[in-house]
Amino acid sequence: MAPGKARMNSKPRIAITPGDPCGIGPEVVAKALATNQPHEVCRPVVVGSVAAMQQGIEIAGADLRLSSIADLDECTGEPGTIEVLDSGALDPADIELGVAKAECGRANGVWLAEAAELALAGQVAASVMAPVNAEALIKGGAVGQIIGTDPTQRYLTLLSGPLRVVHVFDHVMLEDVCRDISIELVLGAIQKTHSSLVGWGIPKPRLGVAGLNPHAQGPQERDAIGPAVEQAVREGIDASGPTSPDTVFRQCIDGRYDVVVAMCHDQGHIAIKTWGFVGNCAMFLGAPYLFMSVGHGTAFDIVGRGVANHEMILAAILQGANLACGRGFLD
Amino acid sequence: MAPGKARMNSKPRIAITPGDPCGIGPEVVAKALATNQPHEVCRPVVVGSVAAMQQGIEIAGADLRLSSIADLDECTGEPGTIEVLDSGALDPADIELGVAKAECGRANGVWLAEAAELALAGQVAASVMAPVNAEALIKGGAVGQIIGTDPTQRYLTLLSGPLRVVHVFDHVMLEDVCRDISIELVLGAIQKTHSSLVGWGIPKPRLGVAGLNPHAQGPQERDAIGPAVEQAVREGIDASGPTSPDTVFRQCIDGRYDVVVAMCHDQGHIAIKTWGFVGNCAMFLGAPYLFMSVGHGTAFDIVGRGVANHEMILAAILQGANLACGRGFLD
Repeated sequence: MAPGKARMNSKPRIAITPGDPCGIGPEVVAKALATNQPHEVCRPVVVGSVAAMQQGIEIAGADLRLSSIADLDECTGEPGTIEVLDSGALDPADIELGVAKAECGRANGVWLAEAAELALAGQVAASVMAPVNAEALIKGGAVGQIIGTDPTQRYLTLLSGPLRVVHVFDHVMLEDVCRDISIELVLGAIQKTHSSLVGWGIPKPRLGVAGLNPHAQGPQERDAIGPAVEQAVREGIDASGPTSPDTVFRQCIDGRYDVVVAMCHDQGHIAIKTWGFVGNCAMFLGAPYLFMSVGHGTAFDIVGRGVANHEMILAAILQGANLACGRGFLD
Repeated sequence: MAPGKARMNSKPRIAITPGDPCGIGPEVVAKALATNQPHEVCRPVVVGSVAAMQQGIEIAGADLRLSSIADLDECTGEPGTIEVLDSGALDPADIELGVAKAECGRANGVWLAEAAELALAGQVAASVMAPVNAEALIKGGAVGQIIGTDPTQRYLTLLSGPLRVVHVFDHVMLEDVCRDISIELVLGAIQKTHSSLVGWGIPKPRLGVAGLNPHAQGPQERDAIGPAVEQAVREGIDASGPTSPDTVFRQCIDGRYDVVVAMCHDQGHIAIKTWGFVGNCAMFLGAPYLFMSVGHGTAFDIVGRGVANHEMILAAILQGANLACGRGFLD
C-alpha cells in the first residue's frame, strides 16, 4: 500500500445522516463536503439516500462527485467526492421539498439506526445528524430512533467555538429543576463531563460549574451544587463553582474554562444563542457513541434555494472528527 | 442672550455622582467627560467632591478644567470643563484609594440624596451613578440611599446597544419566581415598560416578552405570562410572547423588538454579559426619576492606575441625556 493511501485510511470514518430529504439537510451536507475540510480530518460517508444527495448537490451547486458505495470498506475519503451508503430506505419519488412526510420520517429513522449500529460496532467513529423534521418523524413512527440511551446519563451539550456547555437538566420545567436538583445529579454530570473530555484529548479539563440562582446564592447552591463541586474536587477533578450564572459563560469564552456545566436549558441556550458565534453544534455527552447534531431545523421555508447556511453541519462534522481522534475541541 | 447661549442652555442638566472616592468612579467620570461627548447632548454636573474629582482627573490624565460651582444655575456645560457641586460631605483627608471606608460610604449617601432631590425637583433631568462600594455604604449606614421607591414598581433594566432588558424579578430565588409569578406582576412590568418607552420618545415600542421555561412551554406561561401578554395587547400595547427565552434576546439584538421583558435575573444578565457589547449600563425603569448606573464595581484592585474603562459610565450619561430629552435609546 502506498504511504499516501495508508495516511488517508488512518483518518476516522464519520457517518453523516442527511436529515429529512425534504428539508435543507442534503443541501447543507453537500455544501459542507464541498469545502473539502471534512476530508482533511476524516473519511465522511453519508448514510442515506443517493437521490436525496444528488438533489442536494444540485441545489447547493456543489462541485462534488457522488459515489454510491455498497460497503463501508469502499469508502476512500477522497476530496471532491461524496460517498453514499444507500440501503434503499427511501423511494426517491417520496421526496417533496418543504413537506413533512411519513415516508421521509421513517427513512430518517432507518438511517439513524444504521449509523448508530455502525458507531456502536466501531465501524464509524461518530454519527453526525443533519436536521430531521419532528412532524415527519412522528408521522413515520420514528421518534425513538434519535438516540437510545438512559436520559439520566446523557447530557445535551452545545459547542460554539470556545463556549461549550453541558446541561444537567434539558427540557425540564424550572420548578422541577429547583425541586429535583441534587448532589448526585450534579456530581454525575461533572464526572461524566470530566471523563468525556479526558477521552477526547483534554488531559486536565477545567470545568466551570454554574449556580442556579442570581449570583449563585440560594438553597440549591448550598444543598446540591456546592457539595457536588466539593466532592468532584476531592476526586481530583478541576471543577470550580457554583459560579454566578451571568458570568460563568463569559469566563469560558475568555478561556478560563474548557467547558461550563450549566444547571438548566436556558442558562446554556441563552448564552450560546445570544453570543452569536456562527458554526455551533450540539452533541449528547454521555451517549454510548459520539453523536453530533446542529442547532437549526429543516427550514422548509427556504429549502431548495441553495441559500441555507452550512456552517453548523460543517462544525458538527469537524468537531466529531476531532473528538473521535482525541484531538480535543476545535475552537 | 446670544443664540449659542440659548442652545446650550436648552440642553438638560444631568447630575453625576462620582461613586466611592476610593474606587475608580472619579477617574472614569473624568475620562468620560474628557471625551466631550456628554457636553454635546447635556450639561453634566458632578454632585460630589472637588478633591475626589481633582484626583480623578490627575489619575485619568484627563484634559479637563475643574470648576467648583455653588449653585446649579452656574452650570454652563462648556466642553473641556468638569463642573462640581460640592456640599462638603467628604473630608478630602478621608480619601484612601482601594479602601472601603465609612466616611466615603456616608458621603456617597449624601451625594445620592442630593442628586435625587435635584431630580425630583426637576433641577436635573437624570441622576447617573458611578460605582459605589457596598462595604463602604454599609459601614457608613447609607445603603438605603441608592433609590427609594416601591420595589414592586421598579424594574432593573440593562441597556447594551440594541439589546435592552427589563426584569420582572431581580435578585429573587428561582423557586420563588416560579411560585410568585402572576398575571398582575407580568402585566404591571409590561405596562410600565410601554409607558416609560413612550415617554422616552419611542411612540410605539415593540416589546418581546420572554417565557420562563424551555421553549416558553410550562405552567407559568399558561397561567401568568400568556394571559398578561394577551391583556396588554387588548390595551393596545405591541407585546409579543411568551417567546422562548433562548431566542428572544437574539431577536432583540437583530432589531425585532425595542426591549425584552425578561422574567428573571439571569435570563437578562446572561444575555447581556455573554453578548459582550461594550458600553452597557443599568437603570431602574419605573423609578420616580431617571436613575442610571453601570454594570461594574469600584475595582479597588486597579484604582489609581488610570487603566479603568470609562465606556459604561459614558454610556450611562449619554443614555440618560437621550432618554431625558425624549430622543429614545442610543444604539
